[in-house]
Amino acid sequence: MSNKTGTANIGVVGMAVMGSNLARNLASREGNTVAVYNRTYAKTQKLIAQHGDLGFVESEKIEDFVDSLTKPRTAIIMVQAGAGTDAVIEELAGLMEPGDIIVDGGNSNFQDTITREKALREKGLHFVGTGISGGEEGALHGPSIMPGGSDESWETLGPILRSIAAVAEGEPCVTHVGHDGAGHFVKMVHNGIEYADMQLIAESYDLLRRAGGLSVPQIAEVFKTWNEGDLESYLIEITADILTQQDPDGDGPLVDKILDHAGSKGTGVWTAQNAVGLGIPVSGIGEAVFARAVSDKGEQRDAVRKTITQRPEKVSVPDSFADDVRAALYSSKVVAYAQGFDLISAGAAQYDWDIDRGAIAKIWRGGCIIRARFLNRITQAYDRDPQLVSLLADSYFADAVAQGQAAWRRIVGIAAASGVPAPGFSSALAYYDALGSERLPASLIQAQRDYFGAHTYQRTDKPGTFHVDWSGDRSETKVKD
Amino acid sequence: MSNKTGTANIGVVGMAVMGSNLARNLASREGNTVAVYNRTYAKTQKLIAQHGDLGFVESEKIEDFVDSLTKPRTAIIMVQAGAGTDAVIEELAGLMEPGDIIVDGGNSNFQDTITREKALREKGLHFVGTGISGGEEGALHGPSIMPGGSDESWETLGPILRSIAAVAEGEPCVTHVGHDGAGHFVKMVHNGIEYADMQLIAESYDLLRRAGGLSVPQIAEVFKTWNEGDLESYLIEITADILTQQDPDGDGPLVDKILDHAGSKGTGVWTAQNAVGLGIPVSGIGEAVFARAVSDKGEQRDAVRKTITQRPEKVSVPDSFADDVRAALYSSKVVAYAQGFDLISAGAAQYDWDIDRGAIAKIWRGGCIIRARFLNRITQAYDRDPQLVSLLADSYFADAVAQGQAAWRRIVGIAAASGVPAPGFSSALAYYDALGSERLPASLIQAQRDYFGAHTYQRTDKPGTFHVDWSGDRSETKVKD
Repeated sequence: MSNKTGTANIGVVGMAVMGSNLARNLASREGNTVAVYNRTYAKTQKLIAQHGDLGFVESEKIEDFVDSLTKPRTAIIMVQAGAGTDAVIEELAGLMEPGDIIVDGGNSNFQDTITREKALREKGLHFVGTGISGGEEGALHGPSIMPGGSDESWETLGPILRSIAAVAEGEPCVTHVGHDGAGHFVKMVHNGIEYADMQLIAESYDLLRRAGGLSVPQIAEVFKTWNEGDLESYLIEITADILTQQDPDGDGPLVDKILDHAGSKGTGVWTAQNAVGLGIPVSGIGEAVFARAVSDKGEQRDAVRKTITQRPEKVSVPDSFADDVRAALYSSKVVAYAQGFDLISAGAAQYDWDIDRGAIAKIWRGGCIIRARFLNRITQAYDRDPQLVSLLADSYFADAVAQGQAAWRRIVGIAAASGVPAPGFSSALAYYDALGSERLPASLIQAQRDYFGAHTYQRTDKPGTFHVDWSGDRSETKVKD
Repeated sequence: MSNKTGTANIGVVGMAVMGSNLARNLASREGNTVAVYNRTYAKTQKLIAQHGDLGFVESEKIEDFVDSLTKPRTAIIMVQAGAGTDAVIEELAGLMEPGDIIVDGGNSNFQDTITREKALREKGLHFVGTGISGGEEGALHGPSIMPGGSDESWETLGPILRSIAAVAEGEPCVTHVGHDGAGHFVKMVHNGIEYADMQLIAESYDLLRRAGGLSVPQIAEVFKTWNEGDLESYLIEITADILTQQDPDGDGPLVDKILDHAGSKGTGVWTAQNAVGLGIPVSGIGEAVFARAVSDKGEQRDAVRKTITQRPEKVSVPDSFADDVRAALYSSKVVAYAQGFDLISAGAAQYDWDIDRGAIAKIWRGGCIIRARFLNRITQAYDRDPQLVSLLADSYFADAVAQGQAAWRRIVGIAAASGVPAPGFSSALAYYDALGSERLPASLIQAQRDYFGAHTYQRTDKPGTFHVDWSGDRSETKVKD
């Protein structure tokens, strides 16, 4: 053992940008003394050289790092998700004592977090998987933080995380989400919603431009105006800003020079896969993930485009076009969030987490990518009814969507007529209309399934499960009571 | 060891409906002698009592069953996918010798098939995971069969499977799909396409009824007519038939009494999850899976419907409405199949399978649920270009979709205006328009990702990877060559 004396109440492992920014954020808040460690010592030295005035406790060896922490020792791991995280966990766990707390602040899969938490709990250690949103800037100045883990670990960790979180309307953007994987699950859903949000903005831009005939500077103005109303949000704000950016080569807006193949880092994929597995129709997120995938299929795009000789003619749009697009964006966004919160509910039910959905909306108001005025409305909806079965069933959102309904329908029609893809808008409208329909053609699907696979069906007018002898005498049999 | 002498060239384990039907099918074909076994002997006895004239070799004990097979011993397992399958595989593997062949004819996950094949290969046994489509009737009279596995096992198994497969235009509906999990992967995609197909038919029905104002008998006639043209297929045929079915209680069409909550058995979910993971935008399958999920959310549907006070007014539809719906259905179906075949290509690339996509379309022409005249067109497209990058890039399909394009756009517009959910039609159109667009707003998404996460972007006009210092002096830096 080294001869360090524990003086730091919190430690950070991993001095890449996210880790060192988080360490700087922690060190800048009153009450924190921050221990820092990186496998390659040079990175730690770099931090000390540049920001040593913040008073870090630095160690070259991980043993010394652990010894430099006060008990219960609390260390946040900020390394690449996956094998790197496991390696650090194993090292820390070997040096720590029962009651100590290991925090994974990376973008880990919540299933891994569940597994790791269980393994460390058996050793008496607390393991906290936490979502941290806001990118490098957020880590430095105040992210939105979504920690899982035990109640006991939250007692130690809560004040520390509250000290560094973003603040929205006076409240720190952090809450104890739930046990084990709950934090990383909610962070995953956050990122899925982010995909949907970005896709809807992209469709709005595309429609304003290609169907509405607006120029890029005009569209920048439209987004700027939108950012002063119900749509006020970080993503709308940066979109307006991006659209003012000129190509440094001096030839028009930069957006026109950017290759239109969208990348992704995987959390959208996880969200869609888990939603499908849990039976939650997150079509907004699904279409966003698919739209990025299509955009990146360069060979297919080239080959198919060559075969399309007729493209739709220009469709005339109403004077209210930009307002209509705004309404379509707003309503589609409500749908995407409704679906995302449904996924949180389904995850909570499946994995036995007690998640306060209103509190989640609250901590997303600041620090994170999807921060928006809108989220207050969601918190209010769950305040009105903590058991709310859908955001679309809340009176405020129901009214807001109903008011924009006609415009939303016009925009989906214009998109279809003019050949501008709007999968986010149209799937959101279809979802809304499915929930709004007295009867759905799922009855026909059930009949088909009974016809070819004897899967049986239920009836609307009496209990039981039924089957028709379709290839025989066409009689109906009650198969089960 | 028992004193049985091997006389059966093929054995079947599992005498539930699918297994006993498959055994009967095998036994009825010249050249086959079929050994049968079931864990509960009574089921085997029942088969013998009812169909003993087919000359089965029956065993009460699995040891005797194995001994009753000629070498290489070949046994098809027809039990519930999952743990049951593993138990039977273990028993058989313990009794068989190198070179023998174990076939899993259940609806197994292809990942399990890959794992099982590897384990048995190490013991010198062949393991063949095979998709069998067509339900109980197909198993008895001729299914579409999609076997994976080694080339060597195919030499023994090929003639046996050819003897029982459905026949389409003189050709048996079976082909050696590829190694290990290829067969179950292709069966999974088949089921995913089936979901999309059924959803598109359901949307057509719903639109004809609610937007077009047609009665159920009129819609039955429409589907009957469609079944005489390009849409000729099993699913269209049974839809027409289903819609003629009256409620036995004598009160109108049965479809109106069937609860409109669609069920599912999981392969659609697997398809969507794997497609998302492989980066293939199967929006047709995704929306179909989501539409079933929405339909089954009774509590949400009730709660949301109550809040919707205004529903769209009736929209007037053109005289060509039913024809327009047909065109929309046809084009959307082309998209769903194009996406499904893309998923097969992606699976083949990922898991190193050599899959002949034209041959897959061929074996789907008979026996299976999605059997259709249409599939010949797909085979022809791959005959024209075995490397075809999208069915939509094939001249035949490109023309067919282009011809129906205006009608398709009208239908998506009418669906949106009239509040009839058509997520399959609209997402297919959005996919088509995305592929057909010169530029997509993915450029804006890339800019957003660079803005908040420094994810960088590429340019259209020069090589390299770039980043803008968005919050600083807004200069552009080349990050990588």
